Amino acid sequence: MENIYDVAVIGAGPAGITAAIYLKRAELNCCIIEKEMPGGQINKSSVVENYPGFTEISGPDLAEKFYEQINNLDIKQIYKEVLEIENQKEYKIIKFKNNEFIKAKNIILAVGRSPKKLNNNSDRLQGKGISFCSLCDGNLYKNEDVSIVGAGNSALEESLYLADICKTVTIINRSSSLKGDKILISRANKRSNIKVINNAQIKEFIDKDGILDSINIKVNDDIKNLKTKACFIFIGYEPATKFLKNLEILDEKGYIRVDEQKRTSIKGIYAAGDVVKKDAFQIVTATSDGALAAVSCIKDMKEV
Amino acid sequence: MENIYDVAVIGAGPAGITAAIYLKRAELNCCIIEKEMPGGQINKSSVVENYPGFTEISGPDLAEKFYEQINNLDIKQIYKEVLEIENQKEYKIIKFKNNEFIKAKNIILAVGRSPKKLNNNSDRLQGKGISFCSLCDGNLYKNEDVSIVGAGNSALEESLYLADICKTVTIINRSSSLKGDKILISRANKRSNIKVINNAQIKEFIDKDGILDSINIKVNDDIKNLKTKACFIFIGYEPATKFLKNLEILDEKGYIRVDEQKRTSIKGIYAAGDVVKKDAFQIVTATSDGALAAVSCIKDMKEV
Repeated sequence: MENIYDVAVIGAGPAGITAAIYLKRAELNCCIIEKEMPGGQINKSSVVENYPGFTEISGPDLAEKFYEQINNLDIKQIYKEVLEIENQKEYKIIKFKNNEFIKAKNIILAVGRSPKKLNNNSDRLQGKGISFCSLCDGNLYKNEDVSIVGAGNSALEESLYLADICKTVTIINRSSSLKGDKILISRANKRSNIKVINNAQIKEFIDKDGILDSINIKVNDDIKNLKTKACFIFIGYEPATKFLKNLEILDEKGYIRVDEQKRTSIKGIYAAGDVVKKDAFQIVTATSDGALAAVSCIKDMKEV
Repeated sequence: MENIYDVAVIGAGPAGITAAIYLKRAELNCCIIEKEMPGGQINKSSVVENYPGFTEISGPDLAEKFYEQINNLDIKQIYKEVLEIENQKEYKIIKFKNNEFIKAKNIILAVGRSPKKLNNNSDRLQGKGISFCSLCDGNLYKNEDVSIVGAGNSALEESLYLADICKTVTIINRSSSLKGDKILISRANKRSNIKVINNAQIKEFIDKDGILDSINIKVNDDIKNLKTKACFIFIGYEPATKFLKNLEILDEKGYIRVDEQKRTSIKGIYAAGDVVKKDAFQIVTATSDGALAAVSCIKDMKEV
């Protein structure tokens, strides 16, 4: 007989993994679909200190713990990118490339957000000095001068991480002051090798033989040239929802609209985690969302 | 100078501990107040399998991990029972016995819920055969016949725990079928030493020299006598909010009314965790609540 999943969870970050745990423990036929690595954005955190249960853990280590749990529960894992979802009467069709697809009665969307990129030809130098992940790439720049674009918690956390590895870390900040948690700002201020340039705008990334060499920065009305071996960019996120445009469940910024129980306007489609607009995009809010979406789905299935 | 806390968190369960972590990392002068042990209701779970990060962990072990985290962050801990809160203009007064008190500008209420007790003179035999915590007391009844009152997840989880220790576990269920997660029901059904009596009502606890010996149960129209060395009661909870009656922030069942950002109707008072009515009373929803209450409080303080 054809396998139609009771529920397909799309995205294996904290929200998706929690949803899958709750669904599987309710003995539903479920799967979890991920295009990259389980753990989602956690993988890109150097250190997590605000997830209860772990005083201090690296992002990838926490992701590994989450992953162990879905493995241990024997939850079916599909490592593919979803290209489109078609909402049919009896079930939903989840489409991959090469005309591959699966069918599911319900879907929990936990696809998260991706970091925003700068416009200034930064793509061209990605992996050649420009990076979105200090944990992945920081070690390549031991004892070098590096820079960070951004002013929020991610930028600050990563500056502290890089300050232990690199010679200097210069934070390039568009506005007049840093915006993250006080504790992070105060920690960054205490580090003699972390510098901050406020009111600064990136004008141009300059390479030498295809490798980043310096950045032209407009500070107030002056153009400065900052020598830097690497530039790490942490300027925000955008929801990874382009493939969902046909469903008309997105708000103007691309986040998925849900009610308090994490139901979208389409019967049998739920959303959880960073892909839903909220007051705090945190691991704990994501896991909570995942559990709530699963609980709503389980309830709704019993009512059929 | 007199110490007025920026924020006092009342209750050191998952919600309160998470709130305290977020507050302290924002460099606020905060304290956490607990009348029993840090960890709250987690301490009474034999095993936790649905908190992401831990495939399987005992409740007390998870509570210990949470506790380590507030210790590590050097969060001021006060082990006292709060008797009343007085809402004054400049700050709130949190009163303990012996006319002791502290002052705080803001309060996060994370006082949780306590298990409901049966009416039938069960108090008299508490600790003498009647228990509300199988993890605490189960081991006292090795290879004995024990019973459980309840039909939900707690009753089922604890029946599985006790089935490994005791000779037989009889679940006394008021209604016609069990109400917990399918996976738990199916696990309980698979255990030959777990029995279920449906449509059963406790009539009387019978003791022998002050120690529980048997229970008279009405099943449909018959009265049965069930020999049992211990009876574990898991029939629901009630919010631990009696000391808050003067504040007029409770609903008719004693839960604290909050908005989505966990603000009560009183400026500077927030609530989080099981003390707030919700769709799923889970560790993940409690930690999320705690973070949201803290974030709201931090935001509100910046606006002053």
